[in-house]
Amino acid sequence: MMKSLKIAVAGLGTVGAGLVKLLADNAGIIAARSGRAIEVAAVSARDRSKDRGVAIPDSVVWYEDAAVMAAEADVDVVVEVIGGSDGIAKQVVETALARGLSVVTANKALLAHHGTQLAKLAEDKGAALAFEAAVAGGIPIIKALKEGLAGNSIAQVTGILNGTCNYILTTMRETGRDFADVLAEAQALGYAEADPSFDIDGVDAAHKLCILTSLAFATPVDFQSMHVEGIRHISAVDIEFAEKLGYRIKLLGIARKTELGVEQRVHPCMVPVRAPIARVDGVFNAVVAEGDFVGRSIYEGRGAGAGPTASAVAADLVDIARGCRTPTFGVPVAALSPLPAAPMTARQGAYYMRLMVLDRPGVLADVSAALRDEQVSVEQMIQPGRAPGETVPMVMTLHDTTEAAMERAVARIGTLAAVVEPPRIIRIENL
Amino acid sequence: MMKSLKIAVAGLGTVGAGLVKLLADNAGIIAARSGRAIEVAAVSARDRSKDRGVAIPDSVVWYEDAAVMAAEADVDVVVEVIGGSDGIAKQVVETALARGLSVVTANKALLAHHGTQLAKLAEDKGAALAFEAAVAGGIPIIKALKEGLAGNSIAQVTGILNGTCNYILTTMRETGRDFADVLAEAQALGYAEADPSFDIDGVDAAHKLCILTSLAFATPVDFQSMHVEGIRHISAVDIEFAEKLGYRIKLLGIARKTELGVEQRVHPCMVPVRAPIARVDGVFNAVVAEGDFVGRSIYEGRGAGAGPTASAVAADLVDIARGCRTPTFGVPVAALSPLPAAPMTARQGAYYMRLMVLDRPGVLADVSAALRDEQVSVEQMIQPGRAPGETVPMVMTLHDTTEAAMERAVARIGTLAAVVEPPRIIRIENL
Repeated sequence: MMKSLKIAVAGLGTVGAGLVKLLADNAGIIAARSGRAIEVAAVSARDRSKDRGVAIPDSVVWYEDAAVMAAEADVDVVVEVIGGSDGIAKQVVETALARGLSVVTANKALLAHHGTQLAKLAEDKGAALAFEAAVAGGIPIIKALKEGLAGNSIAQVTGILNGTCNYILTTMRETGRDFADVLAEAQALGYAEADPSFDIDGVDAAHKLCILTSLAFATPVDFQSMHVEGIRHISAVDIEFAEKLGYRIKLLGIARKTELGVEQRVHPCMVPVRAPIARVDGVFNAVVAEGDFVGRSIYEGRGAGAGPTASAVAADLVDIARGCRTPTFGVPVAALSPLPAAPMTARQGAYYMRLMVLDRPGVLADVSAALRDEQVSVEQMIQPGRAPGETVPMVMTLHDTTEAAMERAVARIGTLAAVVEPPRIIRIENL
Repeated sequence: MMKSLKIAVAGLGTVGAGLVKLLADNAGIIAARSGRAIEVAAVSARDRSKDRGVAIPDSVVWYEDAAVMAAEADVDVVVEVIGGSDGIAKQVVETALARGLSVVTANKALLAHHGTQLAKLAEDKGAALAFEAAVAGGIPIIKALKEGLAGNSIAQVTGILNGTCNYILTTMRETGRDFADVLAEAQALGYAEADPSFDIDGVDAAHKLCILTSLAFATPVDFQSMHVEGIRHISAVDIEFAEKLGYRIKLLGIARKTELGVEQRVHPCMVPVRAPIARVDGVFNAVVAEGDFVGRSIYEGRGAGAGPTASAVAADLVDIARGCRTPTFGVPVAALSPLPAAPMTARQGAYYMRLMVLDRPGVLADVSAALRDEQVSVEQMIQPGRAPGETVPMVMTLHDTTEAAMERAVARIGTLAAVVEPPRIIRIENL
């Protein structure tokens, strides 16, 4: 058997400790699969005495400073599980790659912002830069796109990429409770951060989608072009109407090739309740990939947590131990070719619209006229309550149109005297 | 760029022709992903003049005899898409491997019967033997088990592995029609073969499961130990009762590690309607893999057809072109370690039982006594119709017990005078 693959683990939080445990628990099968042992030779953490629920062997070299470890440790691979798009994480990755060490990272923010330049650095130094753990936790979706579907031209990738949002939306649906209430509970349960904005505003999902886009279409990462909306505005009443209309509300990341370029968007969607992705509930993630030969394939699993993330990091380490090297984003950096960003206004599809209107005659006529003038046609209309003179919801689904036409129609509808709140729009994706 | 990877395609049926088309249509992206072109240099087919819907370039060398091609063609890889566990397919694979050529095959029967010895031959010759296309069509489940989940100890793999059976069961449920009727329709539509027994008797699913078992547990393939039942006995009435009880009937392949060894079984199962696998309908396949760190992950897609199968073959070719070589069954042949086959009688779980009984007093008492004597307890009982003196169904679900206890109870129940047909048993799997 070959000599062991020596790794340094930068960051001994939940994921780092989970990885150390995985490599110890499954050392035998991993060595058999890798053709060599994978050995933790160095770790970095501020506090050496902290109980992390896992034994760190005495042979492991401790560093207080992860950047020093990346610069000095006698290892083959640096695993970066610190997080953050800049600062120490970036320094660790750059330092390791510059030394020609391979890097395995779970850091989606880093890759979304600096992925192409880091891939170039890795390529120049002959090092691997691997990141299975950065997207959809334990689901081997990076490998699926880079390798498993390598024979396909990919038309679209769609995913539930943030477990916190999916947990909140699922719980709202199951309990009928409102967003703020469920968010507070998710925070108490540890499913949402104290500062939840990265998750609930869609930024985390956007980081992940940005990586999937690059892999799917062989483009440089392009976070700036992304359209990002979160789930703060989703209310219990919208979830209830979605059910009535045969839909579920999910925060989706969608990367799609169109005639105008690449759409990259993260926003709440209504998906038909019969679509496989509609049933992916709680903290689970899922990705749907559509290839020209394979058709639609679906991948589902736990999107976060120590175990799944460690599983993904270990898969990358086994590849490196075996000597399997694939280009960071599936093709060499020189072959990554930018595509224009399709403007969000060109999005084509159906829409859900909820208005809060004064219950009086003529409102529907005014709303219908605004839609007609933008060539938007109504598929269904529901106005369940009657309360003359008071505020009631009026809900519509609208046939396929463009985002631009919807924006204009909604702007006009928002000015109607009987419409007492800004219209709420949710895009319908017929997956 | 490196020189092209030259391949010979043995068999120009639907899959072979699909592969030639895929390699032509997506040549650019495949070369970018592989770091080199993949070039069809030779093909074998009896009839050169037949229209296969795809252009074969003049530079391609034609062979009438696939075995001669495997022995003589100037190529790096032989793709075997002829099929069959022995005969010409086996000869082609053995001949190519003996020459040190890598082999990509879609042949589950060959691997289920001769996989370990072929893996040994490949290893001895330093050749790759790859078979992503052999299981679950375009779903990259082989790669997921060998690489994506490589850090995990796998506890169980469960799959809907035969699209024909899944199509028939789905159509029976949706239309209420009976097995023979739906089978005939499936044959007319090309979803079932003229001789459907390999599919509907579970043999095809068993071949595939056998391969998954080996990958999951690092054991030699062991087709002989498999328990195999098909779907011929599933009736419309069972499907209807399943719905009432909150289940769906699926033909599942299940490979599970237990204290007694490895269970390998293919048989109709009732799965809770809420389980993700319950919603995999029509010709789709799905595999659920449970790892100790990743938890449950689910893979879903088209299980057959030219496009998905060609997609899987292409993925293997890209790996070979890139120089990524993994052991055939995930670990070197010497590390494949047999585990005892857990006897089917030791299966633990719940059961559905349908009796056709004469509607007269005392039947339930007799049935209940037989169950009680085997310590089997009833969860639910339904006896919907009343027709004194005539035959009516009596349906029960039984709490977790062993297969052995059920067999004894069922044998006794079958002898009761009021039980007019052999009891029908369907195992319940709480996935």
